[in-house]
Amino acid sequence: MKENLLSQIFNPVDLKKLSKNQLPQLAQELREFIIDIVSEKEGHLGASLGVIELTIALHYVFNTPEDQLVWDVGHQAYGHKILTERKDIFHTNRELHGISGFPKRSESLYDTFGVGHSSTSISAALGMAIASQLKGENNKQHIAVIGDASIASGMAFEGLNHAGVTDANLLVILNDNAIGIDPSVGALKDYLTAVKEGKNPRQNNIIKSLNFDYSGPIDGHDFKALLSELTRLKSVKGPKFLHVITTKGKGLQLAEEDQVKYHAPGKFEAKTGKIHPKDEDNLPPKFQDVFGLTLVELAQENEKIIGITPAMPTGSSMKFMMQAFPKRAFDVGIAEQHAVTLSAGMATQGMIVFCNIYSTFLQRAYDQIIHDVALQNLPVIFCLDRAGLVGEDGATHHGVFDISYLNCIPNMIICAPKDEIELRNIMYTASLGLKQPIAIRYPRGRGKNINWQQPFQKLRLNEVKCLTKGKDIAVLSTGTIATNVEKAITKLEPNKMISHYHFPTIKPINEKELISIFKDHHKIITIEDGVLKGGFGSIINTFTLQNELKNKVVNLGIPDNFVEHGSVSELQHICELDSNHIYQTIITI
Amino acid sequence: MKENLLSQIFNPVDLKKLSKNQLPQLAQELREFIIDIVSEKEGHLGASLGVIELTIALHYVFNTPEDQLVWDVGHQAYGHKILTERKDIFHTNRELHGISGFPKRSESLYDTFGVGHSSTSISAALGMAIASQLKGENNKQHIAVIGDASIASGMAFEGLNHAGVTDANLLVILNDNAIGIDPSVGALKDYLTAVKEGKNPRQNNIIKSLNFDYSGPIDGHDFKALLSELTRLKSVKGPKFLHVITTKGKGLQLAEEDQVKYHAPGKFEAKTGKIHPKDEDNLPPKFQDVFGLTLVELAQENEKIIGITPAMPTGSSMKFMMQAFPKRAFDVGIAEQHAVTLSAGMATQGMIVFCNIYSTFLQRAYDQIIHDVALQNLPVIFCLDRAGLVGEDGATHHGVFDISYLNCIPNMIICAPKDEIELRNIMYTASLGLKQPIAIRYPRGRGKNINWQQPFQKLRLNEVKCLTKGKDIAVLSTGTIATNVEKAITKLEPNKMISHYHFPTIKPINEKELISIFKDHHKIITIEDGVLKGGFGSIINTFTLQNELKNKVVNLGIPDNFVEHGSVSELQHICELDSNHIYQTIITI
Repeated sequence: MKENLLSQIFNPVDLKKLSKNQLPQLAQELREFIIDIVSEKEGHLGASLGVIELTIALHYVFNTPEDQLVWDVGHQAYGHKILTERKDIFHTNRELHGISGFPKRSESLYDTFGVGHSSTSISAALGMAIASQLKGENNKQHIAVIGDASIASGMAFEGLNHAGVTDANLLVILNDNAIGIDPSVGALKDYLTAVKEGKNPRQNNIIKSLNFDYSGPIDGHDFKALLSELTRLKSVKGPKFLHVITTKGKGLQLAEEDQVKYHAPGKFEAKTGKIHPKDEDNLPPKFQDVFGLTLVELAQENEKIIGITPAMPTGSSMKFMMQAFPKRAFDVGIAEQHAVTLSAGMATQGMIVFCNIYSTFLQRAYDQIIHDVALQNLPVIFCLDRAGLVGEDGATHHGVFDISYLNCIPNMIICAPKDEIELRNIMYTASLGLKQPIAIRYPRGRGKNINWQQPFQKLRLNEVKCLTKGKDIAVLSTGTIATNVEKAITKLEPNKMISHYHFPTIKPINEKELISIFKDHHKIITIEDGVLKGGFGSIINTFTLQNELKNKVVNLGIPDNFVEHGSVSELQHICELDSNHIYQTIITI
Repeated sequence: MKENLLSQIFNPVDLKKLSKNQLPQLAQELREFIIDIVSEKEGHLGASLGVIELTIALHYVFNTPEDQLVWDVGHQAYGHKILTERKDIFHTNRELHGISGFPKRSESLYDTFGVGHSSTSISAALGMAIASQLKGENNKQHIAVIGDASIASGMAFEGLNHAGVTDANLLVILNDNAIGIDPSVGALKDYLTAVKEGKNPRQNNIIKSLNFDYSGPIDGHDFKALLSELTRLKSVKGPKFLHVITTKGKGLQLAEEDQVKYHAPGKFEAKTGKIHPKDEDNLPPKFQDVFGLTLVELAQENEKIIGITPAMPTGSSMKFMMQAFPKRAFDVGIAEQHAVTLSAGMATQGMIVFCNIYSTFLQRAYDQIIHDVALQNLPVIFCLDRAGLVGEDGATHHGVFDISYLNCIPNMIICAPKDEIELRNIMYTASLGLKQPIAIRYPRGRGKNINWQQPFQKLRLNEVKCLTKGKDIAVLSTGTIATNVEKAITKLEPNKMISHYHFPTIKPINEKELISIFKDHHKIITIEDGVLKGGFGSIINTFTLQNELKNKVVNLGIPDNFVEHGSVSELQHICELDSNHIYQTIITI
């Protein structure tokens, strides 16, 4: 039996002690290590398996952490983490107080730049490279490893366009596997595919036209090619670009064959890759599926309905619309800005556009919402999946700012349904034709109703729903956090009768109803799955003072700090949004 | 004397009655018309002069408004407005209740998409083109006219990348004049310059690599070339790209020679182009110059200081730093996302980065502020020029949302100095080294202190300044709107003693000081040059309720609708932020 190499490696200093001939064995061990742990603890799989050789080669050739290595997005950085002093704690990946699923500066010197959202690596690495140049550190290299889905995003282009006119020591490595989370799309992807299929990369080379020293494509699983090319590039000054071809999921056959499913497969059998079957028959649906299936139902009745997703057909369940109406559903790639303004352009022609973007990624299109949609009062329907705390993806991915950043925009309607049926009916109501844009926020994960596919009902959007009628104290909630309030209320003594009102519409807030609630109750508790600053509670606070009401008002929501990773229930506990804390607030207010 | 052609034209139907031979004369008349009016009424000049022939040719060849014509940014659309039913009201350009300086849907059917911010035209026109395709309108064309500065922005790339894999009837016309407001920068610009200088555009053609039918470059002042090529393209299906070379300021010699100055030259002599000299000797400085000159002073003392601007070296006065320290100051082009993450990358290496972005344009980099800067707590110094109401540029350009969209971000400090000296000292204080990011907002236009270049003073950033001490009523203001409060106070009866507190720091708010102010005054008035929703007043409201204070609180600020164009004082009057309204609020509260 061969000696185990991985067990001897604490950090890249140890890695460099191996001979080149030993690296394939190390790659094999690293793959197995990742598969063993991810198969049990869950997490992102395919991306890291695809860059095992590249990861080893980078740390073998370059002088990390002195040379600055930036991983774009970071799904692919498990191998990097394991080789850089985190092998022994890798099993805590994505757990509360464990290591993050993404590179993170506060976790390790080797994580030079925190990531999670795509396409930031070129800008960040260029900033580092220019800084080094100014400090006279002329031999330092700065490396951005970016996938073909991420490099097609506008921000990456901006970085390339700037880098091409500098002489900073930037190395951009394109990890080209033709897939992000879903298969890559767009003209650039077609171009890269042509290169892989034998087109001469010297013709119409977009990278060369941006003034980069282009090399490749090379096989990203071939150590000889990788080590030789990286060693050459190490001493090349200025901006340079290496095109590397890899296979997502490399080394685990099923993961290679179904790359979408094995992006983050959940638990599986380490040896075969077989995913453990889950009995999902009697579970309530995921909100994303409520969105996706409802959209198809609506689209069947109205040919003006369009669906748009920036690179999340699977995650948002827009795939159902893409299957049912391929001409009316668009995956535009990682291009949130374009997605929003494309929607606006369609809306000018009378189309009813459902633009589905995760709450956290809509931050990428903030100006387009204001300038292209709301200012022109175009009735685009934004569906904000993954709103609120998202759990294990952590601080980069929580969708907790949307109420605050949307509420200040004139003309916007903001809705947050409490369950699947309400989400469905808000979508239906919006599809009937609004005179202004609307944002509908709903969380990651499952709802609570098996029989959610009820006949559509048109809603009055600013209706307030009294879920429990009591006196003295009123809890005002918006969105699915209503469930936690309901649980808290069941814990109360039977004689403690409090009211619970659900606000499906946050903007415009129903002031008439609020006046009546404030009249009937001395004490008001607001609660939301979003940041307190500028959120639902803050809207109620301003209402209170503007109307010179003297009620006591207490706001529950996410405090003014970034929330780390952990399960949603753990994070709700930390943020004091769990039913116990709501109960405590009710009995002590 | 030739008959006047322009006077016969109300809209493109009339234009089409002219013979091709008459078009050069019309171009001459249109130029003179624009020069005559802009020389007196001010506005943007050079961009429209550069596209006179292109504008005429487009409306002559295409079937507007049925064919959809989208102007990117819109500085260049004066000729378009004049030829499309607005000749007689063109003299009201940029005035209160007059026509907008930018294309605007509510103003004309010919303005198919409202613009102001750059790089939206390709996405919008593609959305229209796809909608037409779905409606079976297969002969309709959809045209985006975009400059070479705007096409280098990431959003434009996202639009091209998507368009290249569609077969929608999109025509992208690159209006290549090598300048935006300042000269264009970046690798793409270098590539376009090489093409103009004779490089074969068939080599490494970035546009062709994105799967567009590329034609050009052609001379954009040559009617024969324009009409022939546009007529050909009219019947070409699918995505196509025409590269047109123009001269900004064409036809007015001084404007051609100094294209930066003549972008928006103010008043000038129509015949010669000579700009009327202004006596600016005894005027207080522009805030942008306070920023620009102060930055140079600071940079002289600290070599870690860096300046970054996305395409606004002149407008932000970053040009002073670029002249003094060319290696430490960067114009990255219209690339706000890149600018922010580049700053973050530099900050990881210990650089002290002043990233200057207009408040309205920072909306383009919202995710980067949250995800790349604040989450990693990198001490980037954001200088937000043009914060608050900006006047004649109107709804697309008011910098009124920043307090709301920044206040919800953990770790951010938000400052708003009341005058030049305070701006200077906040910059100085930030340059000494912070442990977190800071945004400093200041307005368009001039300050009020001739002797603003006082020795630097380090500030305690969350200090509250009592400007007037009285009793009963306290006005709390932030930023330069303090001046209006001061004026209002002078109108009061001498026995009406009220207090006025200035908050240079909005976040974190100084709660200790607030407690004391609320104790000493029954009634509180807040005022800010920003939207009420989520702004400074809203922060005070939440403070009030959280501390169970019973004071009456009234908020003055910008209401929840988009504010149109007009002078700043007219708009302050409309938004009830002028000294008269403040006075009325004080005496009636």
